[in-house]
Amino acid sequence: MGRRGEHSKEELASMALDAAVALLEEEGPDRLTTRAVARRIGYTVGSLYFVFRNRDDLILQVNERTLLELQEVVDTALAGVDDPMQALLAMGRSYLIFAQTHTSRWRLIFEHEVANRDALPPTLTGRIDGLFGLVAAQLERIAPDLSLIELRSSAHALWGGVHGITVLAVTGKLFAGGEASAKALTDDLITRYLRGLAPVSGSKGIARGP
Amino acid sequence: MGRRGEHSKEELASMALDAAVALLEEEGPDRLTTRAVARRIGYTVGSLYFVFRNRDDLILQVNERTLLELQEVVDTALAGVDDPMQALLAMGRSYLIFAQTHTSRWRLIFEHEVANRDALPPTLTGRIDGLFGLVAAQLERIAPDLSLIELRSSAHALWGGVHGITVLAVTGKLFAGGEASAKALTDDLITRYLRGLAPVSGSKGIARGP
Repeated sequence: MGRRGEHSKEELASMALDAAVALLEEEGPDRLTTRAVARRIGYTVGSLYFVFRNRDDLILQVNERTLLELQEVVDTALAGVDDPMQALLAMGRSYLIFAQTHTSRWRLIFEHEVANRDALPPTLTGRIDGLFGLVAAQLERIAPDLSLIELRSSAHALWGGVHGITVLAVTGKLFAGGEASAKALTDDLITRYLRGLAPVSGSKGIARGP
Repeated sequence: MGRRGEHSKEELASMALDAAVALLEEEGPDRLTTRAVARRIGYTVGSLYFVFRNRDDLILQVNERTLLELQEVVDTALAGVDDPMQALLAMGRSYLIFAQTHTSRWRLIFEHEVANRDALPPTLTGRIDGLFGLVAAQLERIAPDLSLIELRSSAHALWGGVHGITVLAVTGKLFAGGEASAKALTDDLITRYLRGLAPVSGSKGIARGP
């Protein structure tokens, strides 16, 4: 028997999403189904249909919550940091730490294959755009002459790179790079990319080190 | 019944590896088992034991062959290219094209989780070191003052970055970066990283563009 009537729709949706996140972290992505979520909170599968339309929708909602938390972590890392290079280094480190701390949830964002990309909920794509926007905003301070399109493409190139080191780190594939930590590699990539991005003259405070 | 005696050990090993590669490309990693390989070449599982000790060993041998082919592709891309930035751009593009062309095999290198990394065959880790060595050799021409350890770490940072854009591209996760192609992003990352790596004075022919 379900527990219909004990909770409002909003409470049920929130409980179900909490349970989904816990399931994913405890048992991995393969066990994350609407049936398992329903069982965990003591409801019938039927009573969850208005919360998650199907498994794909369940995963997208979990991913959206993960992106929200990542955004909060990045915001915290940025707070009080004024220098753009320091800001991007702080973002890179917080991205890496988030992936290492919440590996299952972080991996699910990138490992879930959606049948139809155009059907991604706008709230989800909006969160992704928002994160790239934070990167582009810092890049603009370093290279104010770039167009918006160039800044956007530059943000994708740099963060694709940070993502690459992060994914190798959390999947144990940094291989022979073992002697340099993922943090050191991320710092190196960001620092040198930003030096290469800055205009030749008037380098906006980007120190060119030894 | 098996076909024992029809082929030499060497022929059987080579046939089995060919069959494993074909299976992976046609049916994906989940169907790649010693049993399926044996069935494909008309031998009993027992007669393959001396070729592949177990499924893990089968996958490692497939991955080693993939790395060998990748190495050949990179060597071809480098042939006749003298300028170090052009050489690294050519390597980045050939890495991306290889991943896009042989996606199942390329992904298996990074998605196969080995129980014990120290037990990786030295021939496999040697191939990986060799590829990073090619990157480091070009970086050294751009930044001759870096120590060997710095060059090695720099090669891991830059190629981890190229890998990141590539993995997002082949898994359909370049998201909102859609307007810039994976090739353009890889070129951007490599070009700016190399500009940032070069010494300030005597920049060794690294043009600083508009």
